Amino acid sequence: MPTINLGKFLVNRLKELGLDTIFGVPGDYNMPFLDVIEDDPELKWGNNANELNASYAADGYARVRGIGAVVTTFGVGELSACNGIAGSFSEMVPVVHIVGTPNTKSQASGALLHHTLGNGNFRVFQQMFAEITVANTQLSIANSTLHAIREIDRCLTECMLRRRPVYIGFPIDLMSAEVDVSESDLQPLQIQRPKNPENTQASCLKFVLQEIERAKKPIIIVDACAIRNEVQADVERLMDKTGFPTYVAPMGKGAVHEAKSNYRGCYAGTVSLEQVAEEVHQADLILEIGSLQSDFNTGGFSYNLDKEKIIAFHTSLTSVFHATFEGVGMNEFLPLVIDNLPKSLTETDWKDLPPPAHTQSIQPEDAPVITHNYLWNKLSDYLEPRSIIVSETGTAEFGVFNLRAPHDCKYISQVLWGSIGYSVGGATGAAAADRSRRVYLFVGDGSFQMTAQEVSSMLHTGLTPVIFLLNNNGYTIEKLIHGKHRDYNNYQMWKYADTFKYMGAELEINTKNARQSVVGYQGKVNTREEFEKAMEQVKQQSNKIHFIEVIMPQFDAPRELLLQVATSENR
Amino acid sequence: MPTINLGKFLVNRLKELGLDTIFGVPGDYNMPFLDVIEDDPELKWGNNANELNASYAADGYARVRGIGAVVTTFGVGELSACNGIAGSFSEMVPVVHIVGTPNTKSQASGALLHHTLGNGNFRVFQQMFAEITVANTQLSIANSTLHAIREIDRCLTECMLRRRPVYIGFPIDLMSAEVDVSESDLQPLQIQRPKNPENTQASCLKFVLQEIERAKKPIIIVDACAIRNEVQADVERLMDKTGFPTYVAPMGKGAVHEAKSNYRGCYAGTVSLEQVAEEVHQADLILEIGSLQSDFNTGGFSYNLDKEKIIAFHTSLTSVFHATFEGVGMNEFLPLVIDNLPKSLTETDWKDLPPPAHTQSIQPEDAPVITHNYLWNKLSDYLEPRSIIVSETGTAEFGVFNLRAPHDCKYISQVLWGSIGYSVGGATGAAAADRSRRVYLFVGDGSFQMTAQEVSSMLHTGLTPVIFLLNNNGYTIEKLIHGKHRDYNNYQMWKYADTFKYMGAELEINTKNARQSVVGYQGKVNTREEFEKAMEQVKQQSNKIHFIEVIMPQFDAPRELLLQVATSENR
Repeated sequence: MPTINLGKFLVNRLKELGLDTIFGVPGDYNMPFLDVIEDDPELKWGNNANELNASYAADGYARVRGIGAVVTTFGVGELSACNGIAGSFSEMVPVVHIVGTPNTKSQASGALLHHTLGNGNFRVFQQMFAEITVANTQLSIANSTLHAIREIDRCLTECMLRRRPVYIGFPIDLMSAEVDVSESDLQPLQIQRPKNPENTQASCLKFVLQEIERAKKPIIIVDACAIRNEVQADVERLMDKTGFPTYVAPMGKGAVHEAKSNYRGCYAGTVSLEQVAEEVHQADLILEIGSLQSDFNTGGFSYNLDKEKIIAFHTSLTSVFHATFEGVGMNEFLPLVIDNLPKSLTETDWKDLPPPAHTQSIQPEDAPVITHNYLWNKLSDYLEPRSIIVSETGTAEFGVFNLRAPHDCKYISQVLWGSIGYSVGGATGAAAADRSRRVYLFVGDGSFQMTAQEVSSMLHTGLTPVIFLLNNNGYTIEKLIHGKHRDYNNYQMWKYADTFKYMGAELEINTKNARQSVVGYQGKVNTREEFEKAMEQVKQQSNKIHFIEVIMPQFDAPRELLLQVATSENR
Repeated sequence: MPTINLGKFLVNRLKELGLDTIFGVPGDYNMPFLDVIEDDPELKWGNNANELNASYAADGYARVRGIGAVVTTFGVGELSACNGIAGSFSEMVPVVHIVGTPNTKSQASGALLHHTLGNGNFRVFQQMFAEITVANTQLSIANSTLHAIREIDRCLTECMLRRRPVYIGFPIDLMSAEVDVSESDLQPLQIQRPKNPENTQASCLKFVLQEIERAKKPIIIVDACAIRNEVQADVERLMDKTGFPTYVAPMGKGAVHEAKSNYRGCYAGTVSLEQVAEEVHQADLILEIGSLQSDFNTGGFSYNLDKEKIIAFHTSLTSVFHATFEGVGMNEFLPLVIDNLPKSLTETDWKDLPPPAHTQSIQPEDAPVITHNYLWNKLSDYLEPRSIIVSETGTAEFGVFNLRAPHDCKYISQVLWGSIGYSVGGATGAAAADRSRRVYLFVGDGSFQMTAQEVSSMLHTGLTPVIFLLNNNGYTIEKLIHGKHRDYNNYQMWKYADTFKYMGAELEINTKNARQSVVGYQGKVNTREEFEKAMEQVKQQSNKIHFIEVIMPQFDAPRELLLQVATSENR
């Protein structure tokens, strides 16, 4: 029987799944596993400033690369990551949370160790995480060494299939244990999605095709779960083959190539641009792909589309009007629909549609001050194709709804979970996930303060995002919701533009393998002219990290946020 | 029947229990409650930079003032505070965690709101917190308005009695609800500790007095739970009345007036000063008050005292050698023992003890560089009586073991939970809890990065701690435990000494009620001479906030930490 080092086995599996960076923070219960990571020439260590940020980074990374991982230490470390992991659960992002736990002997004897609750219960944190993960385990070789191997494979399989986080407790003494494996355990992990039920699917297909053929004014709305299930290529084929007007919900932004002629904009009920809402409400058939109808994704539940018109493609079911076809998941079903579309689709009644609403740029008021209206309109002059746009919960998240971005951009925002501070860690992960893409981070001053130290990790690991610090002097989204002039919505202002300097961009670095970012623009812009000048430098220096503190009027917000607030007055 | 605003009722109860500051972060599910806090002239808002820091601050505050409170928002906010609350549970600190939750209608209908897991389960976070609190509730007036009132009182009572955190979920629509109360509910909350069982206690007392009388070499060891149960005055009386040599465990540091002639030092097994260990091992009777035998509190379980010699006073039981007297808690029992001590205690055999070990200052090596040996010896020249000394898990925590501090100092450190970064939030809370005492914060560079933004709250709310940033270029405690030259134990260095400047100490502040700290010393010291010069300024300017970046040799550590690491090599 062959043997393998258990830490090495887990690391190999993570690499098989596509990981090249693992995030986290060292702790005295996880360091032997960090040795394995550091010794692997194909892996990089995220070097995060704290565990919450590390979990955000793993989430941002997973959104770009299909999976992410974070390593924490028992108790103190893992609980700090708890909000990040819950966010990944809520937003359906596959993240592997590996927790270094005390050695198996101490656990068995209930020793009164540091990082415990002092009650000898070593399972309590795992139990807490059971609520926000789709699989959890504590590795053990007490009965069989194969058990640990099988548990790792089970958790990773669940993570990949269900697109949600899993928890692997890894006792410190097992990290370098040599364990027996069978030959087949050393083969790459085979992850197979369960097949859709054949007859149900056939019946559903017939129904769907018939309705598509019959429709006069069909449209497509693409949402969050299209991205989570990675069906963007299918969506593109569907758009091309049908020519149907296509929309995204806010969380579906990025699932569709916006340059396509039949892309028509972002639909979010009363928070939509007027023309978008009008078009959507005229439709007689709506192909809804991966819909997730949360408050912020539907204009505060003003989505209001008639179920009689909706064919909804979900992760593991399809509904046609009021009929549900259980088990008919989109990954297998969408291609089937596309392949079987009638050769010549009935001519639809969508004729002479005006140019899409979002392409009609709104003329910003003529003033030197940088308003949201100006900012989100102007940005499209600068963004490159294949950019990754990370927008913080708050003003930025809503500004992005109608942003005109070039081909193949990716949008990252926590529209459902909405944890402020997420974007700084998320951008770190996204930037690490694909260094060939430019990352634009839009974060408000309040959110930035939550997780600011992560800029330090960006600098240390040579990442080069463009950071826009939208400084509007307080928690603007909160002020718009409640307590506009309250003290609790204000706090200490910082010299944000000095962030790189403060976090040592010019100091020597103390690790062998780090590659420090080269700093480009760092400063504060008060006017449109200053902003545009800064952006010219940003555009030219694509291999540098930039920090632009954008001074904005207090209480100014994107139109979409103001509309959203109006819908949720009574939440 | 009288009525009361429910938010106001909770705030009044918190004030009754001694709170004048509530920590937390605004969120759209908690703001109406923040209105009540802001409108109360007797209350201050903590204005923390994030929820983890806020929970640490509430913990630090509670350690000084007997109770603390933190307000977070549903999901994202509360989970970020989770590590802090678990720390309060582990270390037995009474903290009230108030979570603003969605309105009762949305909860009942399972609406797909932001900050949820998207599964309609509004109890999941409360369930997670059930593992790390001693009481939890979700306020409701559905069946009876009195229910909410009673639940608040139940949770606060549990918090005070069991000295551990509680969780109160407060739906946003109930925060300003007027509810009926009975007259008696408006009276101050009566919290009564259950009485010890009379006969068991009488029998125990007899046994204890007899053993005390018989002993030839009796000693006292005071530990964590003496502080948690606030029996410091009893300890003082016991020391005075008996004259027995008295020691503290590391977590008991601060429970004893160290200036007393029979205080002999800190006992932690093999991590003790040699003379201390020798004395303790000679004892024939050990009065152990509030013992908590965790790894870092016992020199890695090298405490090793003979149960045949130990009378242990615990929170709710007393043990005399191998006999356990259930229900005989120290709060009632200790005074009884002290009052009944024989008028003239048998002359003990403790004669001609040399001066206590910790008062014999260790001559630091003759070098300009600032070593731990120098630092912890030198500090006693500067500390004032009534200081609060907050030491971070890591080198600082161990440096404090044998620190000679003046009269009536308080020590705050997470010896059991050990979450790095705690001390920055903890010091914020401690400083807010008693502005008449000076707070000295000792934090390492790695720990500081975890929670650095809390310095911003200190500045904003006019707190004036003295911050020592012990810069030894990486995670030194981790390096000593494992991976001395590993990359993962290093990270980006910052210009720490610029922290006040970066965090806007010189900028205008934007809240009506804030009072910005006045900055004293801020800079970096490389040599003993520079350190001593800085300390002169610190000493003179007691009403200012100071920041001293202390450059220390890499790998240098207090003797106590090196001994501790040796004990835990095989954890």
